[in-house]
Amino acid sequence: MTTAVTDPAAPVVDASDGLRLIKPAVRAQPAYTLAVQPATRKLNQNEAPSDLEPELKAEILARVAAAPWHRYPEFVPRALAEALATHYGWVADGILVGNGSNELIQATLSVVLDRDDAVVAPAPTFSLYRLLTSVYGGRYHPVPFGPDFRFDVDRLIATANEVEAKAVVVNTPNNPTGSVLTAAEVLRIVEETDALVLCDEAYLEFGGETVIPRLGDHPRLVVLRTFSKAMGMAGLRFGVALAHPAIAREIAKAKLPYNVNLVTLVAAEVVMGHADTIARRSAAVVAGRERAIAALRQLPGLTVYDSAANFFVVRSHAMPARTLFARLLDEHGILVRDVSSNAGLEECLRISVGTDDDVDAVIAAFTRLYGETTR
Amino acid sequence: MTTAVTDPAAPVVDASDGLRLIKPAVRAQPAYTLAVQPATRKLNQNEAPSDLEPELKAEILARVAAAPWHRYPEFVPRALAEALATHYGWVADGILVGNGSNELIQATLSVVLDRDDAVVAPAPTFSLYRLLTSVYGGRYHPVPFGPDFRFDVDRLIATANEVEAKAVVVNTPNNPTGSVLTAAEVLRIVEETDALVLCDEAYLEFGGETVIPRLGDHPRLVVLRTFSKAMGMAGLRFGVALAHPAIAREIAKAKLPYNVNLVTLVAAEVVMGHADTIARRSAAVVAGRERAIAALRQLPGLTVYDSAANFFVVRSHAMPARTLFARLLDEHGILVRDVSSNAGLEECLRISVGTDDDVDAVIAAFTRLYGETTR
Repeated sequence: MTTAVTDPAAPVVDASDGLRLIKPAVRAQPAYTLAVQPATRKLNQNEAPSDLEPELKAEILARVAAAPWHRYPEFVPRALAEALATHYGWVADGILVGNGSNELIQATLSVVLDRDDAVVAPAPTFSLYRLLTSVYGGRYHPVPFGPDFRFDVDRLIATANEVEAKAVVVNTPNNPTGSVLTAAEVLRIVEETDALVLCDEAYLEFGGETVIPRLGDHPRLVVLRTFSKAMGMAGLRFGVALAHPAIAREIAKAKLPYNVNLVTLVAAEVVMGHADTIARRSAAVVAGRERAIAALRQLPGLTVYDSAANFFVVRSHAMPARTLFARLLDEHGILVRDVSSNAGLEECLRISVGTDDDVDAVIAAFTRLYGETTR
Repeated sequence: MTTAVTDPAAPVVDASDGLRLIKPAVRAQPAYTLAVQPATRKLNQNEAPSDLEPELKAEILARVAAAPWHRYPEFVPRALAEALATHYGWVADGILVGNGSNELIQATLSVVLDRDDAVVAPAPTFSLYRLLTSVYGGRYHPVPFGPDFRFDVDRLIATANEVEAKAVVVNTPNNPTGSVLTAAEVLRIVEETDALVLCDEAYLEFGGETVIPRLGDHPRLVVLRTFSKAMGMAGLRFGVALAHPAIAREIAKAKLPYNVNLVTLVAAEVVMGHADTIARRSAAVVAGRERAIAALRQLPGLTVYDSAANFFVVRSHAMPARTLFARLLDEHGILVRDVSSNAGLEECLRISVGTDDDVDAVIAAFTRLYGETTR
């Protein structure tokens, strides 16, 4: 009882007495990590190419400076929910806001999944779906994409029915493949399975078709949107879930009270008030993506896939993806994401679409690298 | 497939097909809610009495204005973890930061609790422990306080062993009772049970004894701290978990990546650099609490309980708590928390300690109300 800790800087005991209380499924799971690598051009996280306009930031900061920071944020930010309802074309009662859409993925899975419940998702996709399924004790059933990363809707449905899935998670446009489901295909998954269908539309502003207008027909459909991509607010964390109000009410129970801080609430409202700016920024990203894809397709030794998102995938034939990754970074200061360890993405890299200048640099770098290898 | 939604403002279908997928334990749980009531003196959420100093806010906002908002925040804010390690006297590897300490309660319970696992906690206490236990499918075993809200340590230990608890959650000083455990008592719970002990020290700056110096001996001990109370940052959401590094690593798996936004990371670092300001503010709250308790104890028809937190509990004998709550609000503009529906808190209100002026107003209001009733 009175043992002094000789050096508080170093835990003196073995951790096994604590570790045995951690669920085996959690211990078996690798942590979600990302090594920080400094680079001139950061094209590895599908962020917006440039910061919010100075006048938007100034407007937000002026409102934040005047707000009381020592008070909890609004419990239900009603005005914001109404603005979001108008923006997305859905009812305010069916809208939940989160600290990034990640929190809403977490809340949705946690109210649905009991131990050993099945979750079906295409593979490869955003890694958090698998990680959270494990944390909640569920079984994760990945379904591979078809040729050219096309969603295999028939197999998703068949698998969901076979394993009696509680949830099917689809990301459209999908990270990292850039492929899309039509709204009709999402609805087929809802109608031909008994699962909750979580449709993550994080990249929808850059392409694809939203299923939000069909929420009114389907209480087993939950749609997620984020302000981290097209809205340029990755650093502030803001996400939105849209569902039948009765379902939203249940998901809300797993969402923490006061989960979105006051700065983010203000920023989301201000940014939504500048829809024209957002649309212009998204259009520029789409144009940059198409320009990059068209230019890179002229090069030998490379397959460049279609994408409806703010990133695209290239498969390298002329040199290993690891080599390409390293040479882009070391010789050209371009940091991309090496996704080649995923099944189906052998020798692939994912490249975020940056500014026009970034796109120029990517085209120049690939021209140089693939020019060389084929000479 | 082509059915048009006639009125997107009103969900047209019944939700039962979706609700059947929500876990029964979640559906049975009431949502965490708090009605917003405007009041001159807001003493219902145990917030800091006043906003951060203008020069602190200005320093934070200048750094935030210069930061890129479109980039994800740091994955592991190492500099901040080091500063927190120095502040709390623990190792940086054993520190996790969260979007409020609520997120860290959630992450800790989610990596430990499997369906039907038992959680033991004193009652009444912070309601989120019970709510999250339900979401994760656990069984919640409340243990009543002894006379004058003293922790019943023997019974907590006996219950934990009897139900083979995976976790014991203690909040010291406890919300809403203001009562405390000594560090030795917390360690007794660790040593005499097999459970993970989650010690929530949200109000520790106002009284009680921290168990952080003993973390090195106990891999089954997790300590939580918050910046929402003494640090005056409730609106920004920041919490800290401290544990053996091996345990922290497992809890981190259930914590969402990029969970703390860039503004809050900057604010936490700046506020920690002004420890003298924080200490002065906390000392003023403690002085206000003791002055209020002493004054209210002079009045008949009222029991005023000791407290080590930034709030205290009164039990009204001369009029029902509901009447007292309404009269404080309507006649004096003072909003407090009616906690009288909790077993053991019959006819009790919880009052946050505000500014000196708030304390004067509380004393004047009670003097008027209890003077009247005994005349």
